[in-house]
Amino acid sequence: MTIVVQKYGGSSLADADGIKRVAQRISETKRAGHDVCVVVSAMGDTTDELLDLAKEVSPLPPPRELDMLMTAGERISMALVAMAINDLGFSARSFTGSQAGVITDAEHGKAKIIDVTPGRITQALADGHVVIVAGFQGVSQDTKEITTLGRGGSDTTAVALAAALRAEVCEIYSDVDGVFTADPRICRRATKLDRISGEEMLELAAAGSKILHLRCVEYARRFGIPIHVRSTFTDKPGTIVADLTEGEAVEAPIIAGVAHDNGEAKVTIVGVPDRTGMAAAIFEAVARAGLNIDMIVQNVSAVETGLTDISFTLPKGDGRAALQALETIKETVGFHSVIFDDQIGKLSLVGAGMRTNTGVSATFFKALADAGINVEMISTSEIRISVITREERLADAVKAVHTAFGLDSESGEAVVYGGTGR
Amino acid sequence: MTIVVQKYGGSSLADADGIKRVAQRISETKRAGHDVCVVVSAMGDTTDELLDLAKEVSPLPPPRELDMLMTAGERISMALVAMAINDLGFSARSFTGSQAGVITDAEHGKAKIIDVTPGRITQALADGHVVIVAGFQGVSQDTKEITTLGRGGSDTTAVALAAALRAEVCEIYSDVDGVFTADPRICRRATKLDRISGEEMLELAAAGSKILHLRCVEYARRFGIPIHVRSTFTDKPGTIVADLTEGEAVEAPIIAGVAHDNGEAKVTIVGVPDRTGMAAAIFEAVARAGLNIDMIVQNVSAVETGLTDISFTLPKGDGRAALQALETIKETVGFHSVIFDDQIGKLSLVGAGMRTNTGVSATFFKALADAGINVEMISTSEIRISVITREERLADAVKAVHTAFGLDSESGEAVVYGGTGR
Repeated sequence: MTIVVQKYGGSSLADADGIKRVAQRISETKRAGHDVCVVVSAMGDTTDELLDLAKEVSPLPPPRELDMLMTAGERISMALVAMAINDLGFSARSFTGSQAGVITDAEHGKAKIIDVTPGRITQALADGHVVIVAGFQGVSQDTKEITTLGRGGSDTTAVALAAALRAEVCEIYSDVDGVFTADPRICRRATKLDRISGEEMLELAAAGSKILHLRCVEYARRFGIPIHVRSTFTDKPGTIVADLTEGEAVEAPIIAGVAHDNGEAKVTIVGVPDRTGMAAAIFEAVARAGLNIDMIVQNVSAVETGLTDISFTLPKGDGRAALQALETIKETVGFHSVIFDDQIGKLSLVGAGMRTNTGVSATFFKALADAGINVEMISTSEIRISVITREERLADAVKAVHTAFGLDSESGEAVVYGGTGR
Repeated sequence: MTIVVQKYGGSSLADADGIKRVAQRISETKRAGHDVCVVVSAMGDTTDELLDLAKEVSPLPPPRELDMLMTAGERISMALVAMAINDLGFSARSFTGSQAGVITDAEHGKAKIIDVTPGRITQALADGHVVIVAGFQGVSQDTKEITTLGRGGSDTTAVALAAALRAEVCEIYSDVDGVFTADPRICRRATKLDRISGEEMLELAAAGSKILHLRCVEYARRFGIPIHVRSTFTDKPGTIVADLTEGEAVEAPIIAGVAHDNGEAKVTIVGVPDRTGMAAAIFEAVARAGLNIDMIVQNVSAVETGLTDISFTLPKGDGRAALQALETIKETVGFHSVIFDDQIGKLSLVGAGMRTNTGVSATFFKALADAGINVEMISTSEIRISVITREERLADAVKAVHTAFGLDSESGEAVVYGGTGR
């Protein structure tokens, strides 16, 4: 008997009808002869409603209590899904993250899974039950406190359980048909991928693709768990995310897809003396403030002045903290000024074939130039090229690059069903 | 340092303002130098809303999953109360029933507390935190499943924790000022009692008084915990429920109060052969169906026919099951027919002084007769007289008896603030 782990997001569980539809799907998998372990998010807007309640009561709620509050959301949806499965003639048991053995560190609101001890789950599956587990939550190892995992937490819960249960596959259900060569909301001719390597998926997720969260993909790669990204609303197969065999890799397309991100801002430090240690002083100050920066560019310094400019990007929400951190070192470093620009967009082209195929960069930059799009920053990895453009040109840039690499679908427009859950 | 346990019901926690008001009260108790452990119910209508969701999903949800669902309610309110206390400058920690060590049997939906192991609570109090515990819930001893305690569960949680923590007092807050000599909604001149013995409170609760649940009063008596019944909405002292010293007992009023109950129905079995074992056969059949009966009356059998009638009362909701149970023994017992009457009301007069004061029954029945109220059944205990009347005359009966025993308040009408929580 093989074990299948399935994860359903909030948009698939928006109301009683959604819950019944999900229960139907789960029952079909059980009927097909699999042991099924299901991870659920909170229903539709529950998470936002609970956050609103917290805000009404307290301007700055303690993280421990916020986690206690938020975890009520998955508790509600998992019990309801279990009830609906029961009505279809299968026995179902729901378990909280803590009961399921999801052990985390003690960082409330953004805890990391450090172990999974699924004894109760294994027993329940052996007893013939369908198991429903609350996503997004766990219990801290030393303090036994209820924790939440932060963004993408339910996906990560599903992959972690799949690894601990040695599941055949981890199916992640949402409101899109799979992983596309670009976001179908922007690029209507995006093509669904049948398969993508974990390495490429990691780059796409890091570059702003919302379909799977970075931590979930990392976890799946580390434990060799294939992920099947598919839609709750159709029976069509979705996209398999799994590292390719050597033979498959040869056959794989050069480019996996185009990702975009309009959640970043650019900080430029003007007039930095071109002396050893200046960049280090700047990025140490930013790191001390707990901020993650993404791209960094340093210009060649002007010969007459001995001054240079340094630019970096980071999430828009961290902008204020970055400016405060830089202010503290303005005198010691001796730079002129700081420019903050949150009207930027990031476009990334990802493909494992870049390693062995020349001419990818040439095609990429020609496509942007032909579309009249100015490139402000560039960064690359082995299998990715990213550029910063004006935010208002980002959608045009995605479409131009998508077309230039022959990714446009022959078979018409991609279907988008609705919003995405957490 | 003395420990005070407080319990707040759903009507006190209806919205963010209610939660802040409760947090203010808790903080005052903490500021006065007590260690405070608070038990909360779910907010306002949360319990009903969760039940409605369950009904939308499943006509007959499995009890285990229903308990998992319902316990989300207290989880939400306890986290919010903790947040609000935090904003007032005190540190607060919320704990689920399971975390608080509320150990129950495995009867989902109506579990009984069999032990309390409050290690985490004791530690949190020692660390200076205000402790908030989810009422109405626990964890089963052997199976480690989440359970709910059924009606009055949060009151019972509070008393059980007070006993386990050796608290000085268990304060039960609701929307009325205390225990009254009658329900102020019916008898506007009802008088608030400053003090009532546990024995009398037990009889009043059993006789239909809604202010405290029977199980909670039983638990408090068993462990010698005084209960202070008081209002969330005023600072006035409420009613102390505690067994009296011998000296206090002498001074206590003869009558504690009048309770009423319109939730019962009467079943009359007509034409029962007056032979040994017939009553036993009837009540065995009813007991097998899991039904609790309250009052029983058997008439003297008619000399000519050798037949008698047997009447009993039970909760209205159990009527159908009782009729089905009786149908199964109709042939073997050989009775004529069954009459079901759900238009009855029960009135009870309770007072420890009945033991030593003659004339109480005479005054009681004269008051009813003077008010033109027909008595259909009578039952008595050492400190209680109960009668069945027509339901539509019940309120008149309560007022007549209340006045006859001199219980009417001199100081005007009782204040009623709103509905009651679970």
